[in-house]
Amino acid sequence: MTTAHGQVQTPAFMPVGTQGTVKAMTPDRLKELGAEIILGNAYHLYLRPGQNVVKSAGGLHRFIGWDRPILTDSGGFQVFSLAELRKISEEGAAFQSHLDGSPHLFTPEGVMELEADLGADIIMAFDECLPYPSTRQYAEDSTARTGRWARRCRRRFMELKQQRGTEQALFGIVQGGIHSDLRKRSAAEMVEIGFEGYAIGGLAIGEPKEATWEAAQAALEVLPEDRPRYIMGMGFPEDIVQAVSLGADMFDCVMPTRNARTGTLFTSKGKLVIKNAKYLDDFQPVEEGCDCYLCRNFTRAYLRHLFMSGEITAAVLATIHNLRFYLRMMEEMRQAIAGDGFEYWRRDFLSGLGAEER
Amino acid sequence: MTTAHGQVQTPAFMPVGTQGTVKAMTPDRLKELGAEIILGNAYHLYLRPGQNVVKSAGGLHRFIGWDRPILTDSGGFQVFSLAELRKISEEGAAFQSHLDGSPHLFTPEGVMELEADLGADIIMAFDECLPYPSTRQYAEDSTARTGRWARRCRRRFMELKQQRGTEQALFGIVQGGIHSDLRKRSAAEMVEIGFEGYAIGGLAIGEPKEATWEAAQAALEVLPEDRPRYIMGMGFPEDIVQAVSLGADMFDCVMPTRNARTGTLFTSKGKLVIKNAKYLDDFQPVEEGCDCYLCRNFTRAYLRHLFMSGEITAAVLATIHNLRFYLRMMEEMRQAIAGDGFEYWRRDFLSGLGAEER
Repeated sequence: MTTAHGQVQTPAFMPVGTQGTVKAMTPDRLKELGAEIILGNAYHLYLRPGQNVVKSAGGLHRFIGWDRPILTDSGGFQVFSLAELRKISEEGAAFQSHLDGSPHLFTPEGVMELEADLGADIIMAFDECLPYPSTRQYAEDSTARTGRWARRCRRRFMELKQQRGTEQALFGIVQGGIHSDLRKRSAAEMVEIGFEGYAIGGLAIGEPKEATWEAAQAALEVLPEDRPRYIMGMGFPEDIVQAVSLGADMFDCVMPTRNARTGTLFTSKGKLVIKNAKYLDDFQPVEEGCDCYLCRNFTRAYLRHLFMSGEITAAVLATIHNLRFYLRMMEEMRQAIAGDGFEYWRRDFLSGLGAEER
Repeated sequence: MTTAHGQVQTPAFMPVGTQGTVKAMTPDRLKELGAEIILGNAYHLYLRPGQNVVKSAGGLHRFIGWDRPILTDSGGFQVFSLAELRKISEEGAAFQSHLDGSPHLFTPEGVMELEADLGADIIMAFDECLPYPSTRQYAEDSTARTGRWARRCRRRFMELKQQRGTEQALFGIVQGGIHSDLRKRSAAEMVEIGFEGYAIGGLAIGEPKEATWEAAQAALEVLPEDRPRYIMGMGFPEDIVQAVSLGADMFDCVMPTRNARTGTLFTSKGKLVIKNAKYLDDFQPVEEGCDCYLCRNFTRAYLRHLFMSGEITAAVLATIHNLRFYLRMMEEMRQAIAGDGFEYWRRDFLSGLGAEER
């Protein structure tokens, strides 16, 4: 995938930097880890530090000191997570800030202007993230509205692109909940509108696993193979592997970074809860053979000690490891795919994790 | 200063790594910053993860992944900070853990064994940190006891050194409170016992500034110039400069790291409180011309944003800057001293800080 800030190899995992930093990381660390693209969140950055601050800084890349590609999520997911605090109309979504309760209105056009000001390489359309569960009727209405919003996003995006001469790419977001027919209809509508890439939103939000896969597969069957296809928020390693085998190209999830901060480490043999007392005097690395800074230099006993002592350094080191685990998993998949050995790699990886093969 | 883990140039500032890490830092960062020696705390490490864990790990250097010199404080200061929770006798100090209330006894001999097990390059004698204020009588009794404890420390240290064939150095600690005569007496006693280096403890604990300098000067007059002289816990930049001009060689303080975590940045023009609203859209670096990773890559507006958003990365970046400020200040002093330009440098530095010259 080629962007204004360089190439991204796919399948790609995007570390999440909601508020303008990947939590506990700095850009130099992220580069060491092999991150080629990170994610920011338009909703969060709009509320703090504010659209104009980031714009005045020269855009998000310059503001956060990251010169590689960035994708901004539009904030649809966040706005719709506000529940009581938001009201949807055809025009857009009115909501109250989760920070100070102040009233705001996000419209498809306004979000395109916001994301143009932030200046990420890839920006996302403003959608309604259909909650699970929802009635069939609501799912139909909401998905149709997301389609109309996508059209308005595309129109405003093209105007802004022409006015500003920018090289941003806009991705449409397929919704439709757990209904395969709605997913297919939504995907077909997005393709008809025409985007640089396509995302599948509203998955892994509480629905049964089988429903996730059915909905994802329905959308993937319609979305064009020659465009990036991004499953939003999907995060278990075994799920990412499964999604890649179904043809998905892009992923993001807070799981590696959030789990790191609570002391849960990903390894090729499954998760390791470092605060467990048995690691008190375990002088092995978190994962033997792991090429990350943590595993090359420190023991489980030391990392446990840092967590037990409430040290910030614990979060830093664990985040390094977990992100490296995810990014290496993607590297291995890319190599396996290129070498025509994906199925072999997949069996091996999943049996290591102790995960059931699907 | 030559240690088992390499040379340390003096005057030196030692970043504080109480619990086995300099807060928010990793060893690679500390090396980038130019740290040549860091400090650990025997009391804290004894309570958590425990003496045997660190010993089994192969000592503190291997446990924390730091291959440059380490100094461990004995924990005298910490034990005596416990107030209600400790009881002093000739034998030593009985105290309750601040973590779980469990009872412990630190004796001069036991602390030497503890610090031998931790294996730092420089270890500190077990002293009583005389509180301020104290009665003259208590100051005399306590300082005399610290002297007897220092003798017991030295004896046990020499036995352990012979048994284990280690290359540790032991520093004696001068006490005496704000009383110049006691400071001189304590310093003379330490010199008579004979140590690889000498520290001045119990300063900057609430006494008036003039009393600090009077007591420090009294001790420095007695302590030999050809040995490292370490003023413990002294942390304001202007105080370190003043102490260097009086002949002190080593310093440690939590000020750069602790202030960093609350958003107070040191600059050559004084402190900068980054959460201040005026930095919302200030796109200058924290300090123009500073060679640290923060100032080379990020703006005040971004650092403020990270603090306002409660991001761990804020603490990481601010700590990098503040430690680099301290370490560069020491580098500049060493160069100025070598080039015979210390007085000129000092005037310049202090007028920049806005500090009054003494």
